[in-house]
Amino acid sequence: MKRLRAKIAYDGSGFAGYQIQPDSRTVQLELMNVLERIHKGQRVQVVASGRTDAKVHATGQVIHFDTPLTIPLAGWLRALNVLLPEDIRIWHIEEVDQTFHARYHASGKTYRYKWDRRQIISPFTRNYLVHVKQPLDVEAMKQAAQALLGTHDFSSFCAANTAVVDKVRTIRRLEFEEHGEELHMVIEGSGFLYNMVRIIAGTLQEIGVGRRKPEELAEILRAADRDAAGKTAAAHGLYLEKVTYEH
Amino acid sequence: MKRLRAKIAYDGSGFAGYQIQPDSRTVQLELMNVLERIHKGQRVQVVASGRTDAKVHATGQVIHFDTPLTIPLAGWLRALNVLLPEDIRIWHIEEVDQTFHARYHASGKTYRYKWDRRQIISPFTRNYLVHVKQPLDVEAMKQAAQALLGTHDFSSFCAANTAVVDKVRTIRRLEFEEHGEELHMVIEGSGFLYNMVRIIAGTLQEIGVGRRKPEELAEILRAADRDAAGKTAAAHGLYLEKVTYEH
Repeated sequence: MKRLRAKIAYDGSGFAGYQIQPDSRTVQLELMNVLERIHKGQRVQVVASGRTDAKVHATGQVIHFDTPLTIPLAGWLRALNVLLPEDIRIWHIEEVDQTFHARYHASGKTYRYKWDRRQIISPFTRNYLVHVKQPLDVEAMKQAAQALLGTHDFSSFCAANTAVVDKVRTIRRLEFEEHGEELHMVIEGSGFLYNMVRIIAGTLQEIGVGRRKPEELAEILRAADRDAAGKTAAAHGLYLEKVTYEH
Repeated sequence: MKRLRAKIAYDGSGFAGYQIQPDSRTVQLELMNVLERIHKGQRVQVVASGRTDAKVHATGQVIHFDTPLTIPLAGWLRALNVLLPEDIRIWHIEEVDQTFHARYHASGKTYRYKWDRRQIISPFTRNYLVHVKQPLDVEAMKQAAQALLGTHDFSSFCAANTAVVDKVRTIRRLEFEEHGEELHMVIEGSGFLYNMVRIIAGTLQEIGVGRRKPEELAEILRAADRDAAGKTAAAHGLYLEKVTYEH
């Protein structure tokens, strides 16, 4: 048996999320169906770095699976991209040690959240950018974001119905990039709680439009209460961009 | 009655084309449905500069319609964009003279054709760029394109099953732009025959990959025979970018 690791991208628009669930089109199901075809009907488990929600995109999700087949790597890349639907692409595939685990060994993740500040949103980006009509005070958003850097209890930025007990996470980087009318938030951390990036984006957006003050962010964090933070930002603005592994 | 002219965009992916046809989702039908709602159930005819095929996009299509309503222009813009599906957007709307006609008075059109030269096409652009795996010799394509400039009988670049008799058209501009891995062809002319831009794109693509020589283009033009030209390029790479009117 060989263990293969792949870096993949998907357009989340047509998926009910990454993880398999009944009667839904999911990324994991499409991957498993294609691997089952390649393995002549034998089921192959696919492990990702983590799940992503419905409509959430990935440009650098990482998966692993085991195979007894002796196909060269270029052949794997070609076969998977031919058989997979066009809204999932494999960027890269490589052989890794049998001990590698896409989820357990992930030491960090980078997400990108994209807003569109055009007056009228383009029909071509409606599934890829979140439209904000009001002017955004990017300086206020940057200032507020400082409070999130470092290691904190992120209970205020975690979906209320989660089973996770330890809500301490570390944010290593939180930056804004302006690309013309697009505003991007790039956030890198040790790991993220359920809906954490979207609640951070939603709260910073409320600061950007002036509904909250930048100073409030430290208080929101201290409250350790989901109700203290802003709304969960729309899923289709979110991209899983990178998963890092320590060797 | 007032005549209003609007500049509109649409993502062609979800449409069977611009023009109304039975049992299909078309841009014209969506526009007429929304105008009928605004006019309390009264049918409103919409005239476009021309039709576009299934999957073909528009970033600058022009339409006109007549209305007895006295809504200010900003109100029209807002109402239409609220009521229309997100894959159609109105960029701009203005009142024009009753004699204006979006189709008859169009004096020129600009189309853009987009290729993607990445090794693996992104899942985010699969409906918007046409993937060409082989390297494209852009200089050869530019050289060949010279033969198309000016006024010619474009019978070789017109779908065989067309009813139009006069196939003489004028191409004023035909340029290539390279945007990273994307290659764009921008073509401007007095008007275009059915499938003309896509047959030109398909033929130039065959020259780009080396299947034909640049010198062949003049011969293809002289043949005045659809079979002499290359394949019709895929619809989803084509964008109607601009319609010009004298004055």
